[in-house]
Amino acid sequence: MSRLPDIETDFPAWYAEVVRGAELAEHSSVRGSMVIRAHGYAIWELLQRALDGRIKATGHENVYFPLLVPRSVMARETDLIEGFSPEVALVTEAGGSVLEEPLVVRPTSEATIWNTYAGWVQSHRDLPLLYNQWANVVRWELRPRLFLRTTEFLWQEGHTAHETEDEAIAECLQILEHVYADVQESVLAMPVLRGRKSPRERFAAARETYTTEAMMRDRKALQAGTSHYLGDEFAKAYGVSYTGRDGQEHHPFAASWGASSRLVGGVIMTHGDQRGLRLPPAVAPQQVVIVPIAREGSSVREAAEELAGELRGRGLRVKVDAREHVRPGAKFFEWELKGAPLRLELGDRDLATGSVTVVRRDTGGRDQVRLPEAADRIGVLLDEIQRGLLAEARAFRDRHTSRFDDRPAMMEFLQAGEGFAVAAWCGSADCEAEVKAETSATIRCLTLERKHPGAPCIVCGRAGTETATWAQAY
Amino acid sequence: MSRLPDIETDFPAWYAEVVRGAELAEHSSVRGSMVIRAHGYAIWELLQRALDGRIKATGHENVYFPLLVPRSVMARETDLIEGFSPEVALVTEAGGSVLEEPLVVRPTSEATIWNTYAGWVQSHRDLPLLYNQWANVVRWELRPRLFLRTTEFLWQEGHTAHETEDEAIAECLQILEHVYADVQESVLAMPVLRGRKSPRERFAAARETYTTEAMMRDRKALQAGTSHYLGDEFAKAYGVSYTGRDGQEHHPFAASWGASSRLVGGVIMTHGDQRGLRLPPAVAPQQVVIVPIAREGSSVREAAEELAGELRGRGLRVKVDAREHVRPGAKFFEWELKGAPLRLELGDRDLATGSVTVVRRDTGGRDQVRLPEAADRIGVLLDEIQRGLLAEARAFRDRHTSRFDDRPAMMEFLQAGEGFAVAAWCGSADCEAEVKAETSATIRCLTLERKHPGAPCIVCGRAGTETATWAQAY
Repeated sequence: MSRLPDIETDFPAWYAEVVRGAELAEHSSVRGSMVIRAHGYAIWELLQRALDGRIKATGHENVYFPLLVPRSVMARETDLIEGFSPEVALVTEAGGSVLEEPLVVRPTSEATIWNTYAGWVQSHRDLPLLYNQWANVVRWELRPRLFLRTTEFLWQEGHTAHETEDEAIAECLQILEHVYADVQESVLAMPVLRGRKSPRERFAAARETYTTEAMMRDRKALQAGTSHYLGDEFAKAYGVSYTGRDGQEHHPFAASWGASSRLVGGVIMTHGDQRGLRLPPAVAPQQVVIVPIAREGSSVREAAEELAGELRGRGLRVKVDAREHVRPGAKFFEWELKGAPLRLELGDRDLATGSVTVVRRDTGGRDQVRLPEAADRIGVLLDEIQRGLLAEARAFRDRHTSRFDDRPAMMEFLQAGEGFAVAAWCGSADCEAEVKAETSATIRCLTLERKHPGAPCIVCGRAGTETATWAQAY
Repeated sequence: MSRLPDIETDFPAWYAEVVRGAELAEHSSVRGSMVIRAHGYAIWELLQRALDGRIKATGHENVYFPLLVPRSVMARETDLIEGFSPEVALVTEAGGSVLEEPLVVRPTSEATIWNTYAGWVQSHRDLPLLYNQWANVVRWELRPRLFLRTTEFLWQEGHTAHETEDEAIAECLQILEHVYADVQESVLAMPVLRGRKSPRERFAAARETYTTEAMMRDRKALQAGTSHYLGDEFAKAYGVSYTGRDGQEHHPFAASWGASSRLVGGVIMTHGDQRGLRLPPAVAPQQVVIVPIAREGSSVREAAEELAGELRGRGLRVKVDAREHVRPGAKFFEWELKGAPLRLELGDRDLATGSVTVVRRDTGGRDQVRLPEAADRIGVLLDEIQRGLLAEARAFRDRHTSRFDDRPAMMEFLQAGEGFAVAAWCGSADCEAEVKAETSATIRCLTLERKHPGAPCIVCGRAGTETATWAQAY
């Protein structure tokens, strides 16, 4: 039992210690790769299930494409290979001999998937193709950070093909709102901005990248999910064409979209406090932890199991922590660190009065609840916690978001890492680069709908064409 | 619409064509790797869910370890590296430069996991470790066969650590019976033998390998799941030790166990017939397919959707195939090929009489069912089909299993690929090799409990020590 580093003054050390202490993940023997431990993986599974349900509800099916991609297949789309070549890992030997052609360990799967789509599309009746896969990808990483930036990470990647440009763009927006933003807000309790990336911040192969951006507790931005409109370059590069309704040959339009295990890092950094993790009930592996505080011969442990059974019957995830060699105080400490939304303390005195002590992880509030009412009350509390964490995170973000029309003020704000700065921008990459050079902040997103900000560019004073949100970012 | 190759006379071609035609999987641009298509992946997801539920119900938690393993870490357990080195793929370049040490793309994860366990175990209180991961693995494959043998495949691998040898062996047997055999029989409707592997057929690093073995429609055996008792070699090789109840340092005992996407191939080859796939309802992505046969202006389509809604309300997976450019006959053909357990035909005539035509995939039987009774009847039929497929497969296996006490008869039986041959064996690798040389059959398993067969070895005539089941195998 050791205290965490101060969350206000040393956020990176706080983060590293929460990830370690709450047994979420650790570094592995391969530089940049991580071991996801049981508690971290359980959060990921709940998040995965929430994403997967929405991916299927919007008409997509899961498939699986190979890990290894011949370099020549990868290279056929030049933007893609140029964007990723500094990061790829190459298999050059296999089965005891040197390969004729190196294989790329997929950093993303556009290449192999569009190469395969060539065989799946003949007629407009074959469109749209609406596929997703859950996979591991590898991007060589020299400055790893658990969950946030690792050489290997877990994600889902959707790859769709459409008859028209409008349909492909509608796909991107649907995923952004009804899959990513919805899961991030209603499941992870992590409020997000929806927007477009500037050309400089786009996925290399994209014509437009849509993004959700969240604010972490250190006021930095986390890119939480992106969907990309890819035009018809992939169809052309991989020879995918179809006979359209007009009897002519056409190339379909592409979209791709991904969200990854970095979202687990987002949950930690959105809700954490000085005691550790605070998990939204929707992604808490243990929504309720019951700690029986039992003297020899007491019936507290049976009562705890009975209550657990009742709560499980209502579909809740409940853990009875009956370890005998660990003291109650150490258990409280551990489950606070691990972020369980509710702790129930059940001792002989509680039992004698027919009640249980309920402690909220979010506010620290304690309550005596009569046992017959406990299940109802716990259901209500979990809903309150879920909503409360979202409201708290939203208020935090809004408090640390400022609009600017004065360049020095914005630069100062960004340099100090004060949060999100919203201002008009002329669209020039030079102005964007200037802000980055001075403050290390980048444009996190432009408004989803392109509209004139009605103000001059915060950087150069020329006419503004976009409203941009700048911030330092992960 | 083309006929399938004859299942009796050309099983390999039949298999390849079912996999292609039912859109289960296809070869990719990387030799030996496969693309798992939506229908195949949906079967895998259902199977995964069944396995995962039982893995968790038996007390295991999911984790995730890295794909890439330094060769030196892999090499620390010599049996492991010797067993796998001809099959491994090596990453030698990454991030734009040649690596100092090559990384092995995991063929299995004992090495990286036990290397990590060193940090997780100090006291006997930390044991047992009961972890599982869902992962892709790569084993270089020169004679690939979709689902059955591919360079990359999907699997789960459990890796557990125990205080005693007995506990580790009990873990192996629990997984064999309550996870693998249970899922294979009650979900995949694939009857399996439970047994031990002969030393020659064991996992390289195992002291004992337990296996489930199924018979395919061509009377060949498929190894369906294995659990391995690994002794304490891994603990010793990776420096994993703990302070025991006696205050002394001990090495924990290891078990590992895996089942893979090859089980999808097992389902195809256990139940398939001349029309294609026959899916057990428990792993059928579409348990019921409703084909509305509608004239212009008819209300058949609405009635079909209404019936689908009612069935979905009962938790069934239902597809309404309302494609307008495909004729009903072509739909029937397609869903038979894809193995949907029940097809419902709903036309104007059916609707007029308030009934629906129900066609069973397993027997081909047709039935008129009154609409108000349809949901009940369909539930009953799906149960019947699930049980019927298992009974049919069991009868098939038993019909093609023979006991032998005469060497030439057994050799002839095995050479002709007639099925499973059961006979006494003296335990010598020479006798085993002799059978293999003459017939290409191998020992699939020995009885789970080691007991004297009370008969001389079928090969050499010396005293038998084991009862072995031989067969040609995938």
